[in-house]
Amino acid sequence: MKKRIDSALLEAENAKRESDLNSDYAALGEKLARADIDIETITAKAGEFQVAVPSWGTGTGGTRFARFPGEGEPRNIFEKLEDCAVINELSGCTDSVSPHFPWDKVDDFSELKQQADEYGLKWVSVNSNTFQDQPGQEHSYKYGSLSNTQKASRDLAIQHNLDVIEYGQKLGAKSLTVWVGDGSNHPGQQHFQRAFERYLASMEEIYKGLPDDWEMHIEHKMFEPAFYSTIIQDWGSNLLAAMHLGPKCKSLVDLGHHAPNTNIEMIVSRLIQFKKLGGFHFNDSKYGDDDLDSGSLHPYQQFLIFNELVDAEYRNQEGFGPAYMLDQSHNVTDPAESLINSAIEVQRSYVKALLVNREALYGFQEGNDALMASLELKNAFNLDVSPILAMARLRKGSAIDPLAVYRQAGYRKAMAEARPRDPNATGSGIV
Amino acid sequence: MKKRIDSALLEAENAKRESDLNSDYAALGEKLARADIDIETITAKAGEFQVAVPSWGTGTGGTRFARFPGEGEPRNIFEKLEDCAVINELSGCTDSVSPHFPWDKVDDFSELKQQADEYGLKWVSVNSNTFQDQPGQEHSYKYGSLSNTQKASRDLAIQHNLDVIEYGQKLGAKSLTVWVGDGSNHPGQQHFQRAFERYLASMEEIYKGLPDDWEMHIEHKMFEPAFYSTIIQDWGSNLLAAMHLGPKCKSLVDLGHHAPNTNIEMIVSRLIQFKKLGGFHFNDSKYGDDDLDSGSLHPYQQFLIFNELVDAEYRNQEGFGPAYMLDQSHNVTDPAESLINSAIEVQRSYVKALLVNREALYGFQEGNDALMASLELKNAFNLDVSPILAMARLRKGSAIDPLAVYRQAGYRKAMAEARPRDPNATGSGIV
Amino acid sequence: MKKRIDSALLEAENAKRESDLNSDYAALGEKLARADIDIETITAKAGEFQVAVPSWGTGTGGTRFARFPGEGEPRNIFEKLEDCAVINELSGCTDSVSPHFPWDKVDDFSELKQQADEYGLKWVSVNSNTFQDQPGQEHSYKYGSLSNTQKASRDLAIQHNLDVIEYGQKLGAKSLTVWVGDGSNHPGQQHFQRAFERYLASMEEIYKGLPDDWEMHIEHKMFEPAFYSTIIQDWGSNLLAAMHLGPKCKSLVDLGHHAPNTNIEMIVSRLIQFKKLGGFHFNDSKYGDDDLDSGSLHPYQQFLIFNELVDAEYRNQEGFGPAYMLDQSHNVTDPAESLINSAIEVQRSYVKALLVNREALYGFQEGNDALMASLELKNAFNLDVSPILAMARLRKGSAIDPLAVYRQAGYRKAMAEARPRDPNATGSGIV
Amino acid sequence: MKKRIDSALLEAENAKRESDLNSDYAALGEKLARADIDIETITAKAGEFQVAVPSWGTGTGGTRFARFPGEGEPRNIFEKLEDCAVINELSGCTDSVSPHFPWDKVDDFSELKQQADEYGLKWVSVNSNTFQDQPGQEHSYKYGSLSNTQKASRDLAIQHNLDVIEYGQKLGAKSLTVWVGDGSNHPGQQHFQRAFERYLASMEEIYKGLPDDWEMHIEHKMFEPAFYSTIIQDWGSNLLAAMHLGPKCKSLVDLGHHAPNTNIEMIVSRLIQFKKLGGFHFNDSKYGDDDLDSGSLHPYQQFLIFNELVDAEYRNQEGFGPAYMLDQSHNVTDPAESLINSAIEVQRSYVKALLVNREALYGFQEGNDALMASLELKNAFNLDVSPILAMARLRKGSAIDPLAVYRQAGYRKAMAEARPRDPNATGSGIV
Repeated sequence: MKKRIDSALLEAENAKRESDLNSDYAALGEKLARADIDIETITAKAGEFQVAVPSWGTGTGGTRFARFPGEGEPRNIFEKLEDCAVINELSGCTDSVSPHFPWDKVDDFSELKQQADEYGLKWVSVNSNTFQDQPGQEHSYKYGSLSNTQKASRDLAIQHNLDVIEYGQKLGAKSLTVWVGDGSNHPGQQHFQRAFERYLASMEEIYKGLPDDWEMHIEHKMFEPAFYSTIIQDWGSNLLAAMHLGPKCKSLVDLGHHAPNTNIEMIVSRLIQFKKLGGFHFNDSKYGDDDLDSGSLHPYQQFLIFNELVDAEYRNQEGFGPAYMLDQSHNVTDPAESLINSAIEVQRSYVKALLVNREALYGFQEGNDALMASLELKNAFNLDVSPILAMARLRKGSAIDPLAVYRQAGYRKAMAEARPRDPNATGSGIV
Repeated sequence: MKKRIDSALLEAENAKRESDLNSDYAALGEKLARADIDIETITAKAGEFQVAVPSWGTGTGGTRFARFPGEGEPRNIFEKLEDCAVINELSGCTDSVSPHFPWDKVDDFSELKQQADEYGLKWVSVNSNTFQDQPGQEHSYKYGSLSNTQKASRDLAIQHNLDVIEYGQKLGAKSLTVWVGDGSNHPGQQHFQRAFERYLASMEEIYKGLPDDWEMHIEHKMFEPAFYSTIIQDWGSNLLAAMHLGPKCKSLVDLGHHAPNTNIEMIVSRLIQFKKLGGFHFNDSKYGDDDLDSGSLHPYQQFLIFNELVDAEYRNQEGFGPAYMLDQSHNVTDPAESLINSAIEVQRSYVKALLVNREALYGFQEGNDALMASLELKNAFNLDVSPILAMARLRKGSAIDPLAVYRQAGYRKAMAEARPRDPNATGSGIV
Repeated sequence: MKKRIDSALLEAENAKRESDLNSDYAALGEKLARADIDIETITAKAGEFQVAVPSWGTGTGGTRFARFPGEGEPRNIFEKLEDCAVINELSGCTDSVSPHFPWDKVDDFSELKQQADEYGLKWVSVNSNTFQDQPGQEHSYKYGSLSNTQKASRDLAIQHNLDVIEYGQKLGAKSLTVWVGDGSNHPGQQHFQRAFERYLASMEEIYKGLPDDWEMHIEHKMFEPAFYSTIIQDWGSNLLAAMHLGPKCKSLVDLGHHAPNTNIEMIVSRLIQFKKLGGFHFNDSKYGDDDLDSGSLHPYQQFLIFNELVDAEYRNQEGFGPAYMLDQSHNVTDPAESLINSAIEVQRSYVKALLVNREALYGFQEGNDALMASLELKNAFNLDVSPILAMARLRKGSAIDPLAVYRQAGYRKAMAEARPRDPNATGSGIV
Repeated sequence: MKKRIDSALLEAENAKRESDLNSDYAALGEKLARADIDIETITAKAGEFQVAVPSWGTGTGGTRFARFPGEGEPRNIFEKLEDCAVINELSGCTDSVSPHFPWDKVDDFSELKQQADEYGLKWVSVNSNTFQDQPGQEHSYKYGSLSNTQKASRDLAIQHNLDVIEYGQKLGAKSLTVWVGDGSNHPGQQHFQRAFERYLASMEEIYKGLPDDWEMHIEHKMFEPAFYSTIIQDWGSNLLAAMHLGPKCKSLVDLGHHAPNTNIEMIVSRLIQFKKLGGFHFNDSKYGDDDLDSGSLHPYQQFLIFNELVDAEYRNQEGFGPAYMLDQSHNVTDPAESLINSAIEVQRSYVKALLVNREALYGFQEGNDALMASLELKNAFNLDVSPILAMARLRKGSAIDPLAVYRQAGYRKAMAEARPRDPNATGSGIV
């Protein structure tokens, strides 16, 4: 497998830390053993855990006010892929990439697939973009895409999604994620019901074009770019659409797309129960759809979400198998560093959720022992599983301390030289 | 029909105001005529509009901190009914009462029905109470009712709902509203999926006991009395339950039971579209589920909700026919005054929504003329329809100025004498 | 005075509507007279009311996702001024413009001032921009401006503000509005106290450069472009800064910059009481800092804010005299139309607040008659003051129906021809 | 010192766990040593950390809907004190009690003080109650206490606070916490400015009665029991009042009393900077002022708050010395268990904040290394400090596993027998 980080450097850095890691790992193993948990089982599961990187996340994001680009940003999908490779080499838990079209459209998809193959990266959910007008686009999305009152705009948006499926097939992806910016800024601007009917009719056309072994994931979002109403404003509308369209259509949960105070883990449970959980866009937020680094503000909430996911796994819940992806905007950090760290934070939540004694928890729940039930979760969360995560990385040839290696390697600086700024760079950083 | 407000007083007060009203009504009529709106048609519709009064709303409410009771509060359902009669006599738009059990349970329902008949009041949706333990109750609802892990508590809650249906049949009601306080305060306390499964199984039992011509309305609520999760936390879970249970089960929207910033009118549209809008609990709120007087803080939101309702009526939307009820807590006002005023504020929203030129609006929507579409709504809202409301009241023998007559009549003072305080009074004021 | 809308057209359109207006005005006058309100006094006050237009508001706004420009947008401050002139000609209540630098920087300010003079437009609060890097800027604001840890960036930001004061002096403005995007996206990124100390020290330098007859207004904002913390996150920090800097520094309230559910009218009252209310940025929002058209979603809230302002005026509150400005983003409407309509909606709130009987209100407040107190406000709000607003416009030569005239005049279409799109156009639409 | 938990039991339980604890402690010590942190220093500081228990927290709380009392609840302040003793014996970090009057008023305060002395418990901040009417109270607080429009009600509230100071002096307390329920439910009900002026005038009277070595702490609260406005709605009004009153008056932060999404740690920083941080009421919440167990939902937020506190300590910030208190409502758990666990969770946040390398953090902040700065905090948070907390407890004779000992001791069951239910029990559980 092609590597972008010098193996000698990686090994040297790991060597410095290995003894301490072994010591911490042994101590944790002993502690877990007392609770009848085999650390090796957990470490093995940690090593299997993967979360996809969005191609656009490798660039510096911005706000409506400004964007402060960093140096050495990728200028096209091939360079984005290079950064994804680095992220995966160091973190060991991001073996797939989710592309966005038309940003990542290339003339020769086989070339692109080959580069990914060389890096050991797979392609997962493909994303369509009908929230921007492209240069020379004949019919605008200003007033909506799949739900536009004008057939011409809807047809364009439908065809674009069908094209994206085709690109995805060339890359070996198996699902399409549909998020649209459709909605309204003024009460009265849209007829809610008619707009939803148009949306569903358009989605039916796309659904028809879905290969048999594909899934389609609908993403809901409370607001922005539309500020009074969005066509799929919450999981309720999302679920109605997914049920309307059929078994290959499921709902995708982006952590940032909810009303203040929403209990997201409960929504996750409902979607699991009704076999409609398609996947996740992980990120964190304090105020709205802030797209901050995963787990950087509400690590316990992220853990509680994984508590639902691991519970469904434990119960062999029928039809369960969501896709995991990061979806963040990096405005003041090196995107590669944020993505490495965020992937590990997501993995951390997963591993902690594995430590919950589910039978004990069920017992407390059944007996209404609210405090002990809550402590069964909290105690798992309070454990420091860093040694497990580091050991899982070490064993698959990744870095014990990924950020230290990344900085040591001088990757960004090298890229700053290799990638002079290009004003025509595509779609990087927007989330 | 038996009256509780002296007719001579009412007529004298109306006489004082009739000439001014005629003048204002004529001016408004002329203005509306220019827009091809016949004021008489609107006034007739205003006169038909009714919103139910909740029996418990006639008492002073409180918070977990304190309750500051007023004088002359009703001490039982017969006295609550007296106050409801006054409210309807003066407002002319509250011809039905929604009772709550066991608070309003009596030995002889025929006596109760007869009193209501004499006042010209109907009984509408009956409400069950499984969020409190009653004295001597064998199995507690502390850890839930319909979703309790213990079968004994669930059975008690199911039977209570079946009993309430029976009481309702005796009174001539046609629907049951189910709101439960079930939920959790701690992450982990409840298994979300299992709790929901238990809830659905319990509700199936109640649904089976529903007479053929009845409906069952499920009420969702984001939080309180449970502060981490509630079993029916939003319209998504509400809809799933209503769809699971069958066509006689629909969703009820209480305006106060939503996350901050939620677009409630959009939820209303979705429920209409999917034939699942059962009814409303009207109130207003600034922070959470505050249960303030309807329209006292967000009159435009209330108008936008009625815009959806009137639109559904205009389009002859299949299966549309929601029940309207106030559901408020009056902590610092005379409950009768608040209920009179709130009913009229709800009626005001309805009447303003009637003034929207729907065909013009559809045209603006179709043409993406966002500003004109929004102004079509806003201009209707900006009109002062008070003369229409007053005229509708006058024509049916109610008061042009209901609060002036109420105060002039000295009703509360008289009640203060007639109803010495009773520490065993039942369930009044809690919302 | 130079006019941009054909006077003959304007007069012809007014003539069509004058008779109906007279009729509506007379009816309203009669109604108000019954409450001892002289409609002429109110109309005169309405005619004096003015709210400033932000130069940048004349362009189409956008979001971080996309911007869908409209045709005929202004490409520089001279063309923005043209649109401001149209807005004022038709609305009659926007006689001043608030510029933003460096977007509106010109070589010859006297030429700019002269053009404004010809249109009868004044310049009010000047705005600095240290939330974007300008091409070739030596020290970046990526990590903050006035609070940056690097002295070089702070000095640049200070000097820019001093420059902006100088530009403002040339234009005849009398105040500087300071909003900075400084803040952090990650816990720990900034030392809150040290950052605030640096901010205050920088502001002291700017304050020193303030002419004697100028004021400086600080704008707080809860989030964005920083998503974990902003340096002036709320009115508390705003007030502390304003008190620290001195009497010429006051706080500015932008309606969109608050936490969900915040009681903004109460903050307005506090700032009035402590003589620190500098001014307003009017807009409306549903979810966050949405920058929608003023009064388009929460007209009653806007009225309650004006209730505080008119009350302060009525009480001759010392040191009271805030500056009023619109600050909106128009993504799906013609900006000129939105600004015309919004200015009138702000004026509408002011006029309705004038109709409150303050002495009666004080009596209800003193006697704890909560319902009557609330109705004193609500009844004023329910009145339709459109005839007063239209009459005030007519009397000063503006349009009875401004939007009808604007469309009839074909202004935007003409501009589409006169102003071919320019990719280097400056700062229009961002809010 | 008098003990309520059998020492033999405690020692036996500790003995079972001591060896494992030593092993975990050693491993953690080794890990910390690598980062130049001496675990013994941290453990010593952990042992000194104390958070007060509110007397009312020892009873089961409720909501406006219902209260489901537990068995063996304390029926008066002497029994509450017994439970506080148990909580402190087991947790080792709650050596003081905060009483509430008139709930905890006794005839002979010396008797009460003596009982506390015997248990080794101190009395801290005393709390007044002017949000409820007491039986036979001559002037009601229905429409406010310190800000009431009626002098008689204000005088009563002032005198009550002066009385509470007197009680506190007898008990050896040194501060008074003032929270009032004053506010309004309707726009217009209160004149914001006049109400605030009355509040300040009343507070001046109380301030005058404050002994020289006392502090007065003002508590802000966004809403409830008033649902439209509260007199001290946020830290802005709180600070204005505290500054107005004088140096002995400071602000108290209750974590649950804020608008959604508020950055509370930033408010803490501002209060520290301006020497006005008086203390804390710790709890957690998801939706509003939910009063759930501390750290049960947002442990990272609690850590970030302690990061500010420890930073102020580290910088020897002038005038810094806040009082820590729990303030929770326990509706579905044994209050003693919740208080034990919550106290430890608060202590946990403190200890984790001690592990932050402040000089390294300052370096990252100065250099705008946002990711490393955030990880400096996150890494400290991710460490499992349970062994430190347990060791601190063990060394002072408390329990390694307090809840296990509590349950083993059968305390609640014993109390259920010793304390038959008393309907006249005072004020327990309300928060």
